[in-house]
Amino acid sequence: MIIVNFKTYLESTGKKAVDLAKQAEKAAKKTGVNIIVAPQFADLAKVADAVEIPVFAQHIDPIKPGNCTGHILAESVMAAGAVGTLINHSEMQLKIADIDSIIRLTQEKKLISCVCTSNPSISAAVAYLNPDIISIEPPELIGTGIAVSQAQPEAVTNTIRLVRKVNDEAVILCGAGISRGEDVSIALKLGTHGVLVASGIVKAKDPYSVLCAFADSTK
Amino acid sequence: MIIVNFKTYLESTGKKAVDLAKQAEKAAKKTGVNIIVAPQFADLAKVADAVEIPVFAQHIDPIKPGNCTGHILAESVMAAGAVGTLINHSEMQLKIADIDSIIRLTQEKKLISCVCTSNPSISAAVAYLNPDIISIEPPELIGTGIAVSQAQPEAVTNTIRLVRKVNDEAVILCGAGISRGEDVSIALKLGTHGVLVASGIVKAKDPYSVLCAFADSTK
Amino acid sequence: MIIVNFKTYLESTGKKAVDLAKQAEKAAKKTGVNIIVAPQFADLAKVADAVEIPVFAQHIDPIKPGNCTGHILAESVMAAGAVGTLINHSEMQLKIADIDSIIRLTQEKKLISCVCTSNPSISAAVAYLNPDIISIEPPELIGTGIAVSQAQPEAVTNTIRLVRKVNDEAVILCGAGISRGEDVSIALKLGTHGVLVASGIVKAKDPYSVLCAFADSTK
Amino acid sequence: MIIVNFKTYLESTGKKAVDLAKQAEKAAKKTGVNIIVAPQFADLAKVADAVEIPVFAQHIDPIKPGNCTGHILAESVMAAGAVGTLINHSEMQLKIADIDSIIRLTQEKKLISCVCTSNPSISAAVAYLNPDIISIEPPELIGTGIAVSQAQPEAVTNTIRLVRKVNDEAVILCGAGISRGEDVSIALKLGTHGVLVASGIVKAKDPYSVLCAFADSTK
Repeated sequence: MIIVNFKTYLESTGKKAVDLAKQAEKAAKKTGVNIIVAPQFADLAKVADAVEIPVFAQHIDPIKPGNCTGHILAESVMAAGAVGTLINHSEMQLKIADIDSIIRLTQEKKLISCVCTSNPSISAAVAYLNPDIISIEPPELIGTGIAVSQAQPEAVTNTIRLVRKVNDEAVILCGAGISRGEDVSIALKLGTHGVLVASGIVKAKDPYSVLCAFADSTK
Repeated sequence: MIIVNFKTYLESTGKKAVDLAKQAEKAAKKTGVNIIVAPQFADLAKVADAVEIPVFAQHIDPIKPGNCTGHILAESVMAAGAVGTLINHSEMQLKIADIDSIIRLTQEKKLISCVCTSNPSISAAVAYLNPDIISIEPPELIGTGIAVSQAQPEAVTNTIRLVRKVNDEAVILCGAGISRGEDVSIALKLGTHGVLVASGIVKAKDPYSVLCAFADSTK
Repeated sequence: MIIVNFKTYLESTGKKAVDLAKQAEKAAKKTGVNIIVAPQFADLAKVADAVEIPVFAQHIDPIKPGNCTGHILAESVMAAGAVGTLINHSEMQLKIADIDSIIRLTQEKKLISCVCTSNPSISAAVAYLNPDIISIEPPELIGTGIAVSQAQPEAVTNTIRLVRKVNDEAVILCGAGISRGEDVSIALKLGTHGVLVASGIVKAKDPYSVLCAFADSTK
Repeated sequence: MIIVNFKTYLESTGKKAVDLAKQAEKAAKKTGVNIIVAPQFADLAKVADAVEIPVFAQHIDPIKPGNCTGHILAESVMAAGAVGTLINHSEMQLKIADIDSIIRLTQEKKLISCVCTSNPSISAAVAYLNPDIISIEPPELIGTGIAVSQAQPEAVTNTIRLVRKVNDEAVILCGAGISRGEDVSIALKLGTHGVLVASGIVKAKDPYSVLCAFADSTK
């Protein structure tokens, strides 16, 4: 599994979000690997209309329909075509009570939940809240091009070891600095099910080729 | 001017957002009044594609393109078709330094800025930051059906008096509890240029008729 | 163990904080039970000077010494005499990454950590971060006089069951609505080591007598 | 007027806070200049007991007595001896509605309010909320040793010009990077009533001498 977080890069905003999602879909079809895209909220609808691969929101708020101007309602991103959401990305860190509420909300709404964590202890803590996917991303490596799987393999293996003590089912990913196919294949060897990537794809000259290389490395 | 804040009501989510925006457009065309709609982020693109009246975001973040997962980038809502944004709604209150940064960002990007305030002093303070529109909305009246223009006329007139000391140009609106045409006509008599409304329209049985009544009352 | 959270009541501010702490000390000496007081930051020093029972802060920030105007430095509350701290009280909810950082900070500084949680899942999640004390407090019961031990016994027993799967050592308390000795004795029967109380003591006509009754109920 | 913000430096924590405050008092007595100290919350009581110069809190929360664990109650810092408070320091930025609420609270409680601002527009906006003192501190210069009065004199003069349009009474200070007597004398020449300083005093080898030099430069 590969999740491509579009963040708020200009290279993945508006029409470019749709183009990038199409490249991701093409790579998914070619390689047979599950590639998920997570564009900005305002791009969700057009991206989801343009591709058949799964589309995630980058965040949802722990709210019910009503008086929440400016907030992100689960029903809204779902109406736009999202089938899952990132939660607690290191650029959007949440209170533990809100992570718990949001995961319950995703379960109720049949959205796929992917909680990001910054170290193995937090991964294990989160595992108890039963998200579908846990992605370990040491914040200090994000955007550096220094891959977590190579620079901090123990953060990955400890996450897997601790999570598995309490949770047999969660898909485990890793992210931060993933920029080459080798980074991905090492992540898989460490025991993950795939990677969460952003700039390595969004800012690549040829995102399609890089995604294909990443996808092939997950096999 | 009438701004319809769609908030996060189910009645204004997804396809219903597009339908409601079309009702607003129809009322704008019939009455000749400037009606603006502010749907949720995920609905911006489809709403902006469907109508010719101005579309606002409900919020933007004081950020530049880059590493801001889950945040609202000005360029993203603009690519979706937004031409303006609400700022500092009482359900999305901001730090003063962020209000200042966001207003500067809207000026740079040629977005229309509408800052919400909760009392006359804050209205006057905000006036110094030069937003295009200032909307006074006492939070305790929001969603009550008790109109600010009738229940707290002095909040409106004091806002106008204080804002005009330092700022000749800002459009001044009022909001909270606006539910009848009479609430709107009194708001205009108090000296405002119009109203910011939400549940009064979104939850109306016939939003088109209510909007026409509101619009006629602004003349 | 009984922790008395002074919150920000006038009845536990300034000189009254010192008086209340002395009552708690008197009850601790009479009953032989471990009673801990958690006054406001500005009262820590005088309270810690006045009594020999343990004094906790109500919160610390995940910061190091330096440029953090207005924040709560561990070294500062320790210099005032605090030997522990509440963390993530429902009135001061924290990001999961900050809870993790603060617990590590308390370990490094030899401060006793008491993390508050709002339901059994969050209790279990927090257990993985190895605090010294976990206190389950359903927010909806706080300040009601309806005791968690009587109204939601399963919140308490599920907390104990889930926490013990991963953590043998943490002291487990419960709180919210504790107002009679019976509430405390039931809490103990459910398997806790004691209670975290606030208004039940702070607003009692005779805090000493109530504390003695609570303390006797923990035996 | 000179306000010394103790921030959360180890050099101004616990007993060192009391020592530093005594140096400030000594400098105030020698020079006849109004020197105010703003220690951490946990040090307020002992500092206020030890010196006769005014003592400020570094922050208060916009709350009333009650259920606010971990927050800063005005009555609490007053009981400890504080006669004023910093508000909206760049390390503790606040929502505009909270700045407004806190200033009203200080007026009601007869506390002196000192609002920090990061640029002239925000200074002018804040002036409308009627604080007693406004201190302009460009965040990018804080802790650099590059004085605002020398590096950004126009930030200071524009603050004075804009504030005076709407507010004749507020004391105007400047801060950030103030480290030499000359920085202070230029600040006074630009039209301020004094300075807000932190590391320039707290981390000085001889705070008394530096404070005397600063104080003499305000004459």
